[in-house]
Parts: sequence; structure tokens; C-alpha cells
Amino acid sequence: MNTSSPSSTIRLYHVALSPFCRKVRLVLAEKRIEVELVEDRFWEPGSEILRRNPAGKLPVLRMDGRLLAESQAICEYLDEVQPQPALMPHAAIERYEVRRLCAWFDDKFNAEVTRPVMTERVWKKVMRLGYPDSRTVKAGLSAIRYHLDYMKSLLEHRRWLAGDVMTLADFAAAAHLSCLDYISDVDWTHSAEVQEWYAKIKSRPAFRSLLADHLPGVHPAPHYALLDF
Amino acid sequence: MNTSSPSSTIRLYHVALSPFCRKVRLVLAEKRIEVELVEDRFWEPGSEILRRNPAGKLPVLRMDGRLLAESQAICEYLDEVQPQPALMPHAAIERYEVRRLCAWFDDKFNAEVTRPVMTERVWKKVMRLGYPDSRTVKAGLSAIRYHLDYMKSLLEHRRWLAGDVMTLADFAAAAHLSCLDYISDVDWTHSAEVQEWYAKIKSRPAFRSLLADHLPGVHPAPHYALLDF
Repeated sequence: MNTSSPSSTIRLYHVALSPFCRKVRLVLAEKRIEVELVEDRFWEPGSEILRRNPAGKLPVLRMDGRLLAESQAICEYLDEVQPQPALMPHAAIERYEVRRLCAWFDDKFNAEVTRPVMTERVWKKVMRLGYPDSRTVKAGLSAIRYHLDYMKSLLEHRRWLAGDVMTLADFAAAAHLSCLDYISDVDWTHSAEVQEWYAKIKSRPAFRSLLADHLPGVHPAPHYALLDF
Repeated sequence: MNTSSPSSTIRLYHVALSPFCRKVRLVLAEKRIEVELVEDRFWEPGSEILRRNPAGKLPVLRMDGRLLAESQAICEYLDEVQPQPALMPHAAIERYEVRRLCAWFDDKFNAEVTRPVMTERVWKKVMRLGYPDSRTVKAGLSAIRYHLDYMKSLLEHRRWLAGDVMTLADFAAAAHLSCLDYISDVDWTHSAEVQEWYAKIKSRPAFRSLLADHLPGVHPAPHYALLDF
């Protein structure tokens, strides 16, 4: 951690392979907002997470002299203060659809897939909490297929998840799927539409920082950083 | 269910004592949008919840010929299409604070208090799922105190939770607390600031429909509908 950086430096306290941190990283990068990434291994002694965010959650963004928490609130704030390139559409009903889908991934997909699978296959190992529970992993991986089918049903008549332009909803979804892809838990052959969508978003410059992530002790799948997967 | 109502009727599929349904009901009432409330007892055979919302959650709002889901996305949509009275401030940083606090209650407060306490003390009885687990109830009621302290810390230098005007954050918080108040699980003597805030919001006309709720088999606390509690 570079303690000498001036207070005007924008800094994101994050952890690799957190879908909520990744969503904010994607938004910052897409809007070309320079940010200093500081890893907060909040499960280790000495973490100051509660001082930065009383909710005890990451990410926390230090910006404009404040500490900002809650990934969706942060992303909407960034889109309002730095409107270009826009990640929210103009029409109210389209904005509704973006927010509905962000909640779909950050709430439902997270509860059914990301949290159980990542907890068992990554966080238990990193935090030394014991062995993974294979039934939980299996249930999560089974739930992915339902979600990929749902995404396919959207992408059959839309270019992006919420409509014909790329929005925050695509970043929310890609943030979750990219964590699972790191440990090779997404079967991209399940839907050509979803694979094509992920290839489009993965090839954006904003995605580069995520593809360079490396969590000590947990190696990325060989195809993880490949744009042709 | 009134099947003869025209398709232009705004209809909310909801369940009493759901904080997410209550948040949307408060917003609709505050904005004087007439709505037909239709109870969806989604745990009983014949519920069409999945046809209305593939996420399988309430509330669902039928409006403008569409079925809208996800309470936060619905509330922001309502505030955009019917801006008066405004429930979101103008400044980006103030809007951020409203959204952060909505997430605080709908995510953290819900996981630590509302969901465990209401599941054990209300939904298990209503859905015939067995007896309440007293340790879960006790943990939830203990967590309330921490949250009341957090609200007190905000209200010591703000008139409302997110600042000096009433916003969606107050409705989100009041929606959760009103469910717990129905079963008498909020100790209002814990903080004079929080009690005063709740008295202010409870006395608004928008709150009346919530105070008239009655869930068969689960009786409201005697003080539940009293404005002087």
C-alpha cells in the first residue's frame, strides 16, 4: 500500500475475485478514471475494513475526499459524475431494466451461484476455513445452467443484456461470470449467444485489469485471460 | 382478485409484512399513484409468481402494460416517471447516500434482522413450516440494537436518514422496521432520535395502508397502528 499517495488520488479498496469489486473496477476503467487498487485482505488481522465501511463490505472507493461503499450506489454515482461513456440509458423504462438486471445478478445469481461456489472453491482455501462442501458446489454449478438459459433468452432478441446498448447490467453479469471463469466453472458451450456476449465484453480494454488478476494459491484456468476461448 | 379490472389499472402483487413490498407501497402512496393491491400467497398452490417474475420474488408491479420486478428498480422508476414529491435528491453525492442506505437496509439489515426474525416468528407459522428457532430470533433481535445505534448516529446530525429531506432511504428503513413493529420486536425506548424519526414517518398519509394490514393468524402488537407509541 502506497501511503505516500496524495489524498486526491482515487483509491479502490478491493479484493480480487469479488464480483462487486470487479463491477466497480469495470466502470472505473470504462470511464477511464485512474484509480489506485489497494487489496484489503479483510479476513487477516489489521484490516481496517470496518473503519472504512461500517457495513464491513468491499469495495470501498476513496474519491472526492469521501469513502464510498455499496457497489451499485458507487456505480450509479460514477455514471452521474462522469457521464461519458454512458452506462445507463436515458429512458426511465430502460434504466429500470438495467437496475432490475443488476439486482438479478448481484442478488439472485450471487446467492444461487457466485457466493456458494466461490466460498467453497476459493475463499475456504484462501481463508483456511477447511475443505469445500461438494454438494454446495454441485448445487451452484447446476444453478448456473438455469441462469445461462435466462441470459440466452434475453440475448436472443437484444444485442446486450438490457437492450441494444452496453450498460451497467452487462458489467454486473460479467463481473460474476468472470470470477467463476477464473476457476473454470462456466461451461461456455452451453449457449453460443452467451459465449459471444462474453467474448465481446471480455475484449474491451476495461476488462484487462481483471484478466491480469492472480490470487496466490488459486491459479486461473488456462483459458481465463484468452480472448479466444 | 378482481379479474374484471381494465389492463390500465395499476396493480401491485404483494404480500403483507414483506419489507420490499412495503417500500413500493409507501412510494406509490406518497406519490398518490392509485394502485390495486393483490395479495400473492406465493407459498400456496396456484400462485403465478414465476409467470409474473422469473426471479420468483415479490413485489411485482403491473404498470404501463408491463410487469415490473425488484423493489429498488421499481422505486427509482416511479420516482423518475412521477417526480413529485421527489424521493431522490438532486445532487449526485446525495443520491449516492440514499442508494447506499437503501442497500444497507435491504441487504444488511434484511440479512441480519428482518429475514431471520420474520422467518422464524411469522413465515414459519403462516407457511406451516414448524416451530421458530429461538436462537435465530435472539440473534436477530440482538442485531437490531446495533442497527438502531447506527440510525441514531445518522439522525444526530441529520433530520432524515440520508440528509435534511425525506428520501427513499427513510421508506426503505421504515418498511423493515414496520414489519418488525407489527410483531412488537422493536424496542423504541432504545433511542429517542430513532423513535422520533419513526413517529414522523408513521404519521404520513402514505403509511396508513401499512397500518391497516392484518395477516390472518398473526396479530399485530397493540401499539402497531398507534401514532403515539
